[in-house]
Amino acid sequence: MSENPFPPPGSVERQWATFAADLRWADIPPAVRHEAKRSILNIFATAFSGCREPAVEKALATLMPFSGAGTVSLVGRSERCDPAFAAFINAMAANIFDYDDNHPTTIIHPAAPLAPALFAFAEQRPVSGLALLRAFVLGGEIECRLGNAVSPYHYARGWHITSTCGVFGAAVGAGALAGLSAQQFVWALGNAAAQAGGIVETLGTMSKSLSVGNAARLGLLSALLAEADYSGPPAPLSGERGFLKVYADNPNAAALTGGLGEVWEIAKNTYKPYPAGIVLNPVIDAALAFAQRPGFDPAAVTAVELRGNPFLRQRTDRPDVATGREAQVSAQHAIAIAFRRGEAGLDAFSDAAVAETLREGRPALTFIDDAAMDIAAVHATFLLADGSRETVEIEAARGSPENPLTDAELEDKLRMLAARAGFPKPVQPLIDAVWVLDEATDAGAVSRLAAA
Amino acid sequence: MSENPFPPPGSVERQWATFAADLRWADIPPAVRHEAKRSILNIFATAFSGCREPAVEKALATLMPFSGAGTVSLVGRSERCDPAFAAFINAMAANIFDYDDNHPTTIIHPAAPLAPALFAFAEQRPVSGLALLRAFVLGGEIECRLGNAVSPYHYARGWHITSTCGVFGAAVGAGALAGLSAQQFVWALGNAAAQAGGIVETLGTMSKSLSVGNAARLGLLSALLAEADYSGPPAPLSGERGFLKVYADNPNAAALTGGLGEVWEIAKNTYKPYPAGIVLNPVIDAALAFAQRPGFDPAAVTAVELRGNPFLRQRTDRPDVATGREAQVSAQHAIAIAFRRGEAGLDAFSDAAVAETLREGRPALTFIDDAAMDIAAVHATFLLADGSRETVEIEAARGSPENPLTDAELEDKLRMLAARAGFPKPVQPLIDAVWVLDEATDAGAVSRLAAA
Repeated sequence: MSENPFPPPGSVERQWATFAADLRWADIPPAVRHEAKRSILNIFATAFSGCREPAVEKALATLMPFSGAGTVSLVGRSERCDPAFAAFINAMAANIFDYDDNHPTTIIHPAAPLAPALFAFAEQRPVSGLALLRAFVLGGEIECRLGNAVSPYHYARGWHITSTCGVFGAAVGAGALAGLSAQQFVWALGNAAAQAGGIVETLGTMSKSLSVGNAARLGLLSALLAEADYSGPPAPLSGERGFLKVYADNPNAAALTGGLGEVWEIAKNTYKPYPAGIVLNPVIDAALAFAQRPGFDPAAVTAVELRGNPFLRQRTDRPDVATGREAQVSAQHAIAIAFRRGEAGLDAFSDAAVAETLREGRPALTFIDDAAMDIAAVHATFLLADGSRETVEIEAARGSPENPLTDAELEDKLRMLAARAGFPKPVQPLIDAVWVLDEATDAGAVSRLAAA
Repeated sequence: MSENPFPPPGSVERQWATFAADLRWADIPPAVRHEAKRSILNIFATAFSGCREPAVEKALATLMPFSGAGTVSLVGRSERCDPAFAAFINAMAANIFDYDDNHPTTIIHPAAPLAPALFAFAEQRPVSGLALLRAFVLGGEIECRLGNAVSPYHYARGWHITSTCGVFGAAVGAGALAGLSAQQFVWALGNAAAQAGGIVETLGTMSKSLSVGNAARLGLLSALLAEADYSGPPAPLSGERGFLKVYADNPNAAALTGGLGEVWEIAKNTYKPYPAGIVLNPVIDAALAFAQRPGFDPAAVTAVELRGNPFLRQRTDRPDVATGREAQVSAQHAIAIAFRRGEAGLDAFSDAAVAETLREGRPALTFIDDAAMDIAAVHATFLLADGSRETVEIEAARGSPENPLTDAELEDKLRMLAARAGFPKPVQPLIDAVWVLDEATDAGAVSRLAAA
């Protein structure tokens, strides 16, 4: 069409579209492939965590009449629906506690909009596990590079970056499964650009999950429309009124394509050990380590000094929080509950757990700012009733890039969250299948293992 | 819920929510009611115009498998689907040529996201025509006031304002039909804020229609979710990371609520006589008037001088356009085709019509800028082969606020566009039903008259 020319060489659209159309499995390094599997294992885990939450239950009940007659599965649930609605619900569930994966430079949760779209596609139109992993790496690359390019303006302005960039990742990933041509990839980007949305003001409410669900759903549909030659502009990202100029000030063009095919963003993905703000991870590590010492008595701790990055004080000095959601960023509650329970999973940040520490007491904290310290580090000094002091130094918290969760820890996370959701089937077949996903002839058979 | 308090008095969310919950039919002046009917008649007309376009056909074919099993009708078509998908398709069709209504201060097309959502609701859950008209006035008020508040930054930055503000209008309008409480209206606004999107870069392509369709679909779903107490933040608009701060610089707060219930934005709505850029309206008026003079011979016109607002020259001096879409903003083509055909409907801006004037010749134009002239005015001087000059002065073009289309002209527009779409049924019952919509016991029965 004369109105929709293929974008020129050098444009981000042309480079991404040809990269997406041409990427070979052999070009993806083994470590990147393995990180993709870890991301997928973790997203099944957190989808279990959210699959029975009120926002998911309400969305499912209200919107199921708007689902087509598909047979695609939902993680942890027995309902079946069309692929787009399944992608929507699974993405909501996976992200609802912000307990899912985290791309460090953008704070995007890459897998929530992406993996649900891909598995929904795969359950409807069978594809190999290798094709799905390739699509996951590709989609993750696009959404995280787009996030890098619009950061830090984009999130600081108030865009919910997981949603706004996630729709592009889902579109390109699903497009890869559909076998789009380079021209069709450009149209998929345009269809995604027309549908991106989500704002930070909704965080902490049910509304947030709509934008995350939409990113998965509308990304998938953007690809299917492009497959049908439903066309868009040649420069949906870089055009004068394209995504980059509308959603960012001074976007970083080099981040979009620099080292494309050599530097892999999805390889930088991280996974949370606790369902709390990332800056609390070293504090929880320290409290749990201290609580494991022989003869530990929480009543003997009179106060705690925390030396850490100023962000730690700014974001987590919240002695009086009263709800589970607020407690996800309260150092006082986090230490108190870690002392009491010796663990810090989802139930440690429930409303009931917060009421418990409010009633039974939280330690008095002193924060000492040290801008030279990484946000993954803390030096915690515990002051005891006998006047003694003991210090636990954490230099790289669990789940940080320098101290990632092990494969076994990710497996444990999945087992714990599936059990917490009352999942009635054994999860080992799912875990095993994810580790050999690249050998699966039918990727959809893997996600069906997560359905109740 | 402690996390989602009802917004404080004085906030836009509180004022809009209580206005929406409390507005009585008796409070809406008769002239406003009548303008709502005119807007609805016009949106049926333009939905006929687009209902067979390739973008609609492709979207329908690709996305129908994702529709629930509803029985809601599509304008000009025989398919039936769920209410959300019907709203999506009808909104796309109504806006595809930008031939729909226009709110002058924002250039929002108010009815496309709104009326399809309301009639889809009404076909699924019967409501009276009066309830639907009240919901239309209310939704139009919200979307246009929001548009006023974020203008001119919002559209200039690159937001497709019909889509981004339309989702709020559809949410509030559908919420009115659902009988939401004031608290639920706040949640509907929050659900809409999480789902707003659409960028100007997509204009002129199929992708644009996705954001317009989404505005209708997602607005409707925002209301249904709120009805189920799917909750959002207390300040989705005015919050620190709310819609107004994210999507605008220096939003005009007074535009949101000043004169609420006294000044009615939907009463300012206008309707296009020609499917062309608004600044061309007086030029087409002048050319058609001149062509009707006795003894008119297009070959005798050697040149034309156009005295008008500088926008006329800046936006429409395009002598060499080659496609129908480009020709919508070409004064040269518009005059040539008006001369040749004596009319300027959709077929006058087809690719074939443009090829015809390119082949057969377009008049040489001279533009004379006159910043004192309104964009609805032009003084057109026709230079003839015999050396004589004749001037036609248009002070307020057809379709401008000072010279609105008459009710009869709107009826003619609908008749013409329905016939052009090959609509197989008489349209007079539809026209008659819209004029007495406030007396209908079942509003859904009215929109079913537009289905094939």
